[in-house]
Amino acid sequence: MLRAPAHGPGTGAARPPNSLQEHPKPMYAAAITQFTKMLENLDRWVDKATQHATAKKFDPAVFVTARIAPDQYNFTRQVQAACDAAKFAAARLSGKEPPKHPDTETTVEELRARIASTVAYLKGFGPADFEGANARIVPLSWMPGQGLAGADYLVELASPNFYFHVTTAYAILRHNGVDLGKVDYIGSINLRDA
Amino acid sequence: MLRAPAHGPGTGAARPPNSLQEHPKPMYAAAITQFTKMLENLDRWVDKATQHATAKKFDPAVFVTARIAPDQYNFTRQVQAACDAAKFAAARLSGKEPPKHPDTETTVEELRARIASTVAYLKGFGPADFEGANARIVPLSWMPGQGLAGADYLVELASPNFYFHVTTAYAILRHNGVDLGKVDYIGSINLRDA
Repeated sequence: MLRAPAHGPGTGAARPPNSLQEHPKPMYAAAITQFTKMLENLDRWVDKATQHATAKKFDPAVFVTARIAPDQYNFTRQVQAACDAAKFAAARLSGKEPPKHPDTETTVEELRARIASTVAYLKGFGPADFEGANARIVPLSWMPGQGLAGADYLVELASPNFYFHVTTAYAILRHNGVDLGKVDYIGSINLRDA
Repeated sequence: MLRAPAHGPGTGAARPPNSLQEHPKPMYAAAITQFTKMLENLDRWVDKATQHATAKKFDPAVFVTARIAPDQYNFTRQVQAACDAAKFAAARLSGKEPPKHPDTETTVEELRARIASTVAYLKGFGPADFEGANARIVPLSWMPGQGLAGADYLVELASPNFYFHVTTAYAILRHNGVDLGKVDYIGSINLRDA
């Protein structure tokens, strides 16, 4: 997903780690519960896009190669990258080896299957899998010898990267006329009396 | 920012709250440190867009009304909404009254001033401001009588909403030829030896 070292102005020396929390539940909520819900939202957007294509009498496959800029990922790669961002967050933070996905999807149906596969993987995790995740050092494949503490990895890299690809996928569909709104984006929330 | 109730399929009864953590530092890291950095990244994208316009000999004001879809916020409103998402997250989670911004920006310079004003506001917070924030009920202005526990508000609403507007602003610039990449999006990260 990242093609170059992810540092920029103001990097300098490493800051003290963010001690996100001691209890594993919060990381589970942020990395599993929330990412799962967003991927399920994404699946519904793809479904809406397919319905839109059917209503307008064009091939839904038009969406899989649609993009916002000629040198940016197309819709297929945005969906793949969103799935990978969630998969790698779960795996890296829990110290597990993620399953491989060869990125061979070429149809809307295959993209939905990719999302479903990722959601199924995420649903295999429980809060206990994230014991010690805050302090676990996550190595960065594109920066040999360097990494992030788990708490920083979640907040500074995994979350912004995940939302980047989800939101860009959404933008591609909106750009192509699919009737989506903020409610479709946010999805269900844990309401209580106020 | 939200025009309708933000619930969807699967809402049903309220789930138990996510107990994000007991210590206030993590929420400070996620809501203040990270959002501040992303707004500073956004400011650099606007600067790059201005330089791009100068190099290509067009008025940078073209960007302020650019958009991805005719019925989606233009660049100005995306920047305003990103600033507001960060401002409201800081205020709501700390139980403070946020400053008002009348949304009158019409130039790139005014948008950068809006970002700077929001960053200055965020920098006035410290970790201690978020004592008790996880359990604090954040009322939702568009859903009278309903709200979210602070921990849920951060993970389920404030963060996805913030990244939505930041990423869509980025997409608008990319769509219009500004040379941005993932490193510009992610910004500095808290690297350590791995």
